[in-house]
Amino acid sequence: MPGPLGIVAGGGHLPRQLVELCQSNGRGAFVVALEGNTEAATVEGVDHLWIKLGQTKRALDALRKAEVRELVLIGPVKRPSMSELWPDAYTLKGLAKIGFNRLGDDGLLGAVVRTLEAEGFTIRGVDELMSELLAVAGPYGRFLPDAQAEADIARGVEVVRAMGAADVGQATVVQGGLVLGVEAIEGTDALLQRCGPLQRAGPGGVLVKLSKPGQERRADLPTVGVKTVEGAAAAGLRGIAIEAGATLVVDAEAVRRAVDDAGLFLIGIDLST
Amino acid sequence: MPGPLGIVAGGGHLPRQLVELCQSNGRGAFVVALEGNTEAATVEGVDHLWIKLGQTKRALDALRKAEVRELVLIGPVKRPSMSELWPDAYTLKGLAKIGFNRLGDDGLLGAVVRTLEAEGFTIRGVDELMSELLAVAGPYGRFLPDAQAEADIARGVEVVRAMGAADVGQATVVQGGLVLGVEAIEGTDALLQRCGPLQRAGPGGVLVKLSKPGQERRADLPTVGVKTVEGAAAAGLRGIAIEAGATLVVDAEAVRRAVDDAGLFLIGIDLST
Repeated sequence: MPGPLGIVAGGGHLPRQLVELCQSNGRGAFVVALEGNTEAATVEGVDHLWIKLGQTKRALDALRKAEVRELVLIGPVKRPSMSELWPDAYTLKGLAKIGFNRLGDDGLLGAVVRTLEAEGFTIRGVDELMSELLAVAGPYGRFLPDAQAEADIARGVEVVRAMGAADVGQATVVQGGLVLGVEAIEGTDALLQRCGPLQRAGPGGVLVKLSKPGQERRADLPTVGVKTVEGAAAAGLRGIAIEAGATLVVDAEAVRRAVDDAGLFLIGIDLST
Repeated sequence: MPGPLGIVAGGGHLPRQLVELCQSNGRGAFVVALEGNTEAATVEGVDHLWIKLGQTKRALDALRKAEVRELVLIGPVKRPSMSELWPDAYTLKGLAKIGFNRLGDDGLLGAVVRTLEAEGFTIRGVDELMSELLAVAGPYGRFLPDAQAEADIARGVEVVRAMGAADVGQATVVQGGLVLGVEAIEGTDALLQRCGPLQRAGPGGVLVKLSKPGQERRADLPTVGVKTVEGAAAAGLRGIAIEAGATLVVDAEAVRRAVDDAGLFLIGIDLST
């Protein structure tokens, strides 16, 4: 028996889904909830500990006491500035070693994963535990990109890959060859909102959301859900391209209905070759 | 005598400054003004032709008639979508050859420059004609970046360089190691506006604005002016880093006063080595 699953929970609904999965399959879970990130509903009826970011030692002690051996990092965490951290001595030592401010998002997450491994935990990926969430190749719903949208997707892939090389962002919006916006820390919803009014006349743009090259898959897979579809539709986009095998689709059935209702395409593209 | 200078004028005040320079040194100028981009003041009291983007043939004929042999492309031009162009037959042929929607901003500008050269014009860079506008290395004004700001500048350089490799954007805002935003088509003013509220507690962020690697310098140098400084101050940033020798500073004296008044640093960094 591997003991209960340790869940370090960021924002959104995904952490709750994993909690419920662990409850229904009898394994049980212990949640480390992060103030300002985790939703209150995530920890209802499950063992948990609320911490501020940086209170690593308290979290490690609680996880060990709960006999957790396997850990999952799931849901987005707002990356704090140094002065928003409440680092305990353990965390400070770790940050000093890795050089907090020099690291990109993924560099930091990689360091967190390595630190937890060094403490004896096994870090599992969401994609292993909830593989049915991973995007598949091909269309979701009944709409397909046309030739212009295909060209915009290709341009978007190029842009996100280049950004990913600097460990920034996972998404871009492209319309008729124009890169309308690139996501940094603001998140995909804000990206969609600002790109709507930036659109030119003509067929709408396309959201392209991918993993970064070398992304720490156990900590930070890009996610799309009904909210993403609604945001894209509200912005006047024509569709969404995600990376098959490297993007999580939360509630695929609802997402499929949402794209069909909105008249959008959503397509999983295979970038592994 | 090289004949009057042909000025293909985008937005902002810079084209007018060049017009006045040509008037005061006796060379004279002929302005091609672009509807929706050029400011009305740019063409006051100087020979000019208003065109819609895409009416290349009319512009070429007028430039030849005015005996223009040297051309400058100056000031930002909103890149149109294909359906916003009013392409004449000449332009359509050119676009078909270069593949409009496949090109990044700089790729498109490079193609425009090559086309004008093939028509027999010599294309001059703003930096040649108004070399006093080029950013110098070192601080403007009396404030200097501290160690954290220096680190943020280094991270910003890395990010803009990576973006530039995909021919997108010239600017980013970094705060305490966090990349708050990356500029695409929205422009630096909009980038600054949205990054203000994204800032975390702690010392403010830094705007980093650079040329792209391989940028077509004769068509599209990044520009900062008093408005940039005011936008950065309003967003709560601590300073601005620009690329010495590859960024235009419009009205350096006013910019110097503006940064001193706002308590910001503005520094030209040498990336040539």
